[in-house]
Amino acid sequence: MPVSAIGKTVPVRIRIDLSYDGSGFSGWAVQPGLRTVQGDLEQALATVLRVPEVRVVCAGRTDTGVHARGQVIHADVPDGAAVGPLLRRLNGVLGPDVRVRRVLPAPAGFDARFSARWRRYAYRVADDPSLLDPLSRGHVLAWPRTLDLDAMNEAAAGLLGLRDFAAFCRRRDGATTVRTLLGLAWARDEAGVAVAGVRADAFCHSMVRSLVGCLFAVGEGRREPPWAAQVLAAGARDPAVWVAPALGLTLEEVCYPADDELAEQAVLKRRRRDG
Amino acid sequence: MPVSAIGKTVPVRIRIDLSYDGSGFSGWAVQPGLRTVQGDLEQALATVLRVPEVRVVCAGRTDTGVHARGQVIHADVPDGAAVGPLLRRLNGVLGPDVRVRRVLPAPAGFDARFSARWRRYAYRVADDPSLLDPLSRGHVLAWPRTLDLDAMNEAAAGLLGLRDFAAFCRRRDGATTVRTLLGLAWARDEAGVAVAGVRADAFCHSMVRSLVGCLFAVGEGRREPPWAAQVLAAGARDPAVWVAPALGLTLEEVCYPADDELAEQAVLKRRRRDG
Repeated sequence: MPVSAIGKTVPVRIRIDLSYDGSGFSGWAVQPGLRTVQGDLEQALATVLRVPEVRVVCAGRTDTGVHARGQVIHADVPDGAAVGPLLRRLNGVLGPDVRVRRVLPAPAGFDARFSARWRRYAYRVADDPSLLDPLSRGHVLAWPRTLDLDAMNEAAAGLLGLRDFAAFCRRRDGATTVRTLLGLAWARDEAGVAVAGVRADAFCHSMVRSLVGCLFAVGEGRREPPWAAQVLAAGARDPAVWVAPALGLTLEEVCYPADDELAEQAVLKRRRRDG
Repeated sequence: MPVSAIGKTVPVRIRIDLSYDGSGFSGWAVQPGLRTVQGDLEQALATVLRVPEVRVVCAGRTDTGVHARGQVIHADVPDGAAVGPLLRRLNGVLGPDVRVRRVLPAPAGFDARFSARWRRYAYRVADDPSLLDPLSRGHVLAWPRTLDLDAMNEAAAGLLGLRDFAAFCRRRDGATTVRTLLGLAWARDEAGVAVAGVRADAFCHSMVRSLVGCLFAVGEGRREPPWAAQVLAAGARDPAVWVAPALGLTLEEVCYPADDELAEQAVLKRRRRDG
């Protein structure tokens, strides 16, 4: 076990990919007295690794009720921790609504939050009775009126690119609302369910659900497609923009640079810091 | 409202397509003191139609815990019953784990059970930790070992056709176990989950789950592919054949003849009966 100059063991960083059903959680971030994904995961890691405390950092801090299929986290664990049996052990300790899908030693320079290139969310809507499926009622929003996906896609096209998304964000003091929206498009899956794929470098608080809510107004014909771009241009939260329910939202994927690129970035960062 | 010679109104037959999450039900068929899909549906129809009793007949009597996406039933309801708003009203009365997807006047000669050409079930298995998805934990079986789908398909090919499936059925007194297995094949869906599609003119009790259990032994390498056909040929229930859990099983689709063919069959049946 490597020992640093001051006699402590050097921790090693691991990457964990996980999925969860958000309906039983008060979101990602630890909150006193509430069940959260971060809380459960940190507790499970501490139990399995037999250490007093483990801190984890995630790629996308999901809100209360939001699901994840492709959440990614990193944690620094004592060197010598058996990474191999960690997946099985964590799944033995965690509830059935959180599953660890993969545990790997993190590549050099990896940070689940800051290394991420983009995050992709999906929002799912059953907008016709023939699409109602109780097996997916926990993550597909049932909607009583048919949505016009063509109109929604026309509206969405006016929102892409590097913009200030203040109109679609619950502002947190000091945090920027400038983001690059890389993709926002609706399509029907093989069953006919309407699915929005939303991809950005990063998202601010409630951004995906506000974008989806705005497009609902267009999809139902209550607003014309150019309205979405007008809301964006106004640059301030518009009370006419509805925030779609958490139930339909799932964090699907987080994209990271290749390992060699990560290592390069880490070296550059260190040089900048030291130099 | 049409009135028959003896003064009673003539009932009209309706077809209802529905889906359900089987985990909260003691199967399809009414049982005293237990919650069943048939019981809930008959109660909901009686409530909505304001009649003392409605009987329904289904295409596939699913066991405890088995799900359905494409269940089909018929019911004879008083003429003049508003079929239009029935879908919305039934969904307003039923629990969230049963959804009516379609209500139609039944074509002439339609019988949900006897008119069906074939039933198709799916059995879903996540046979690798990377496939674990809490959002589908209610209808996809988590399995700790990878299944060899090629071996399972080789075994399945030896079971197709018109056969006596006594080896794979919980026998009920007097009932035939001769069935035509039209299709049985494993493939991975876009996420990688192993899915068996199983199609037959009709199924006997626990037949799909016994077929799946038999193929698991082959997929894990505990048996060679020809074993499945040997079990079938033995013609009696083999204690070595495991019955796979209900959780992974879903009735996906029921196929009926075209309307004109149904009407023709009904005329032929009447002639046979009268003549």
